[in-house]
Amino acid sequence: MKPLPSPRLLMGPGPSSVTPGVLQAMARPPIGYLDPELFDLLNELRAGLRSLFATANSFTIPLTGTGMAGMECCLANLLEPGDEAVVGVMGFFGARIAEIAKKLGAEVTVVEGEWGRPIDPALFEKALQGRKQVKLLACVHAETSTGVFQTLQPVASLAKQYGALFAADTVTSLGGMAVDADINGIDAAWSGTQKCVGVPPGLSPITVSERAMNAAANRKTPQNHWFFDWQLLKNYFDGAHAYHHTVPVNLYYGLAQALHEIEAEGMQNRFERHHRCSSMLMNGLQELGLQPFAQEGCRLPTLNTVRIPASVADEAALRRRLLEEYGIEIGGGLGALKGQIWRIGTMGACADERSVLTLLAAMRTMLH
Amino acid sequence: MKPLPSPRLLMGPGPSSVTPGVLQAMARPPIGYLDPELFDLLNELRAGLRSLFATANSFTIPLTGTGMAGMECCLANLLEPGDEAVVGVMGFFGARIAEIAKKLGAEVTVVEGEWGRPIDPALFEKALQGRKQVKLLACVHAETSTGVFQTLQPVASLAKQYGALFAADTVTSLGGMAVDADINGIDAAWSGTQKCVGVPPGLSPITVSERAMNAAANRKTPQNHWFFDWQLLKNYFDGAHAYHHTVPVNLYYGLAQALHEIEAEGMQNRFERHHRCSSMLMNGLQELGLQPFAQEGCRLPTLNTVRIPASVADEAALRRRLLEEYGIEIGGGLGALKGQIWRIGTMGACADERSVLTLLAAMRTMLH
Repeated sequence: MKPLPSPRLLMGPGPSSVTPGVLQAMARPPIGYLDPELFDLLNELRAGLRSLFATANSFTIPLTGTGMAGMECCLANLLEPGDEAVVGVMGFFGARIAEIAKKLGAEVTVVEGEWGRPIDPALFEKALQGRKQVKLLACVHAETSTGVFQTLQPVASLAKQYGALFAADTVTSLGGMAVDADINGIDAAWSGTQKCVGVPPGLSPITVSERAMNAAANRKTPQNHWFFDWQLLKNYFDGAHAYHHTVPVNLYYGLAQALHEIEAEGMQNRFERHHRCSSMLMNGLQELGLQPFAQEGCRLPTLNTVRIPASVADEAALRRRLLEEYGIEIGGGLGALKGQIWRIGTMGACADERSVLTLLAAMRTMLH
Repeated sequence: MKPLPSPRLLMGPGPSSVTPGVLQAMARPPIGYLDPELFDLLNELRAGLRSLFATANSFTIPLTGTGMAGMECCLANLLEPGDEAVVGVMGFFGARIAEIAKKLGAEVTVVEGEWGRPIDPALFEKALQGRKQVKLLACVHAETSTGVFQTLQPVASLAKQYGALFAADTVTSLGGMAVDADINGIDAAWSGTQKCVGVPPGLSPITVSERAMNAAANRKTPQNHWFFDWQLLKNYFDGAHAYHHTVPVNLYYGLAQALHEIEAEGMQNRFERHHRCSSMLMNGLQELGLQPFAQEGCRLPTLNTVRIPASVADEAALRRRLLEEYGIEIGGGLGALKGQIWRIGTMGACADERSVLTLLAAMRTMLH
């Protein structure tokens, strides 16, 4: 066994580097899944996650699994075979929502957006008008594959207007920019801890409105997902604490510490830090001659995308050198954007000036 | 936030206490899910898990999730709606297999055994004879709710004879007693890391035979589980390393350290240690006047069950005192055995003489 992993500055699309305090917390001895202290810890985590999502939703939990588990969990509870779903696709993760919704037997109407721009709400309205009764409208808040954010409120309003539930992927936004679940009218949102929340991967914060919980409880056909079943999870997390599975308590320790650090920093300060570091990075990259990929005004402050210049013959080799020689990870393009763009995270502990300067210096050396 | 959890000796049904080395390993900085070092680490983990399962199965991975995730993962890939499944139930976890198999739409024939004893293989044969074509025969190797082990080989032989695949729950056996997946003829097995393997909860080692992989690949109806889809997982873990989800690398660090410690101890030594500590515990408990619950000769060396004496009016209060005054966790009965038995683990780092002596001393004080 390698005694220690090589030091890495994680400025890809996630996981991001975390603080020493979070790492130390992960090393605390585990306690049992029925220990009274565990439920104290869980109450603390759930309160902290409600602050992050800006929601009063009771069912706000750190789901065991990563963001993809959260996505499947929310869709599997809400969608029955034959249900109508409208899904916005402006990148790889929107396409994943559509893929999983189809796997679950839903009749999916895809609202296609151009990769690199948010989706025009009018397109959602057109899709909603064309279907009889849409059960769920889903889209991505922060599209990790393109670096674009979708303003949620207009889309959520349409969902409400047409009697649909509204779900959003907030994997690359939670902890780095406002999600405002209640203000925006989100019925179900999923995220991951390994990006802007500042915890190693393994947990997926999810939040679910009463309306969505009721919809799941009143479905006509039983869902066939057990590990992700909201009602079973609720029986463990709330009230009776009925055994469901052995929860990953060491990841909980890391999350508790991260939430503590977020509270100490202040949510607005944290969002501003992400914004400041993202601007600093994008300005620096443009000075190096790189062109932004995402449409101006809709660029994520958490995940930054630039077009790979024609002068770079082998972009994967450049990223490999960056990793091997400088210990810095950045991401390549996903799906249709493979070979076209780089994805550079300014998330969590890596949304910091020193990290941005380090990356810019290394990029300068390699590009010139 | 509580700065540190109270010190606990985890001698319940899991999680078990882990070594300081494993805790330290968990605090290493994360690396990315496409980092070449991550794949070196994964190769090491998968080789170590193959040794633990005693299998040559290529598809042997640490699934993201806990033992229950592993159970659903294996069942969801193998069972299609309408498939015939025969499930042995001699306790709570056998019943869970049956419950999830039914949720997946399988036609489930339950082979009922008495709680506290293994199931007579003749009962499995009777069930197999009565059905047209059984796709899957599943049972529990180490029943955590009763403290009983089922000898797998005769059951696996029957599965083979009747053309069925054979799956086993090895959550409470892996790392503490031989699973011998290949010798026994197991097609799919799932486990957890938080018991005898010695890692905090969050990973479910699974191993799948070529025959079972082929059965899943050739199913007539697509499965609707995405996060647990073997083919998608294989695309990430093998060959192309196509992004599936952001794997929980800090749990991987813990598992790597645990596997390293297992290798240093030697598998046989480890099994003997579990056996020795279990015997020591059961002898000590019997000296205190407690009666074993599980049938002699079929008692797990990892999870020990005793009947609660009539003299104990409030068993939950006793367990609470044990936790609060001595920092020792033991488990109560699950399901039908609630209030009837205690479940005491001698697993992983808690399969050790000092822990057993400590528990016995505390029990002596409280019972007399």
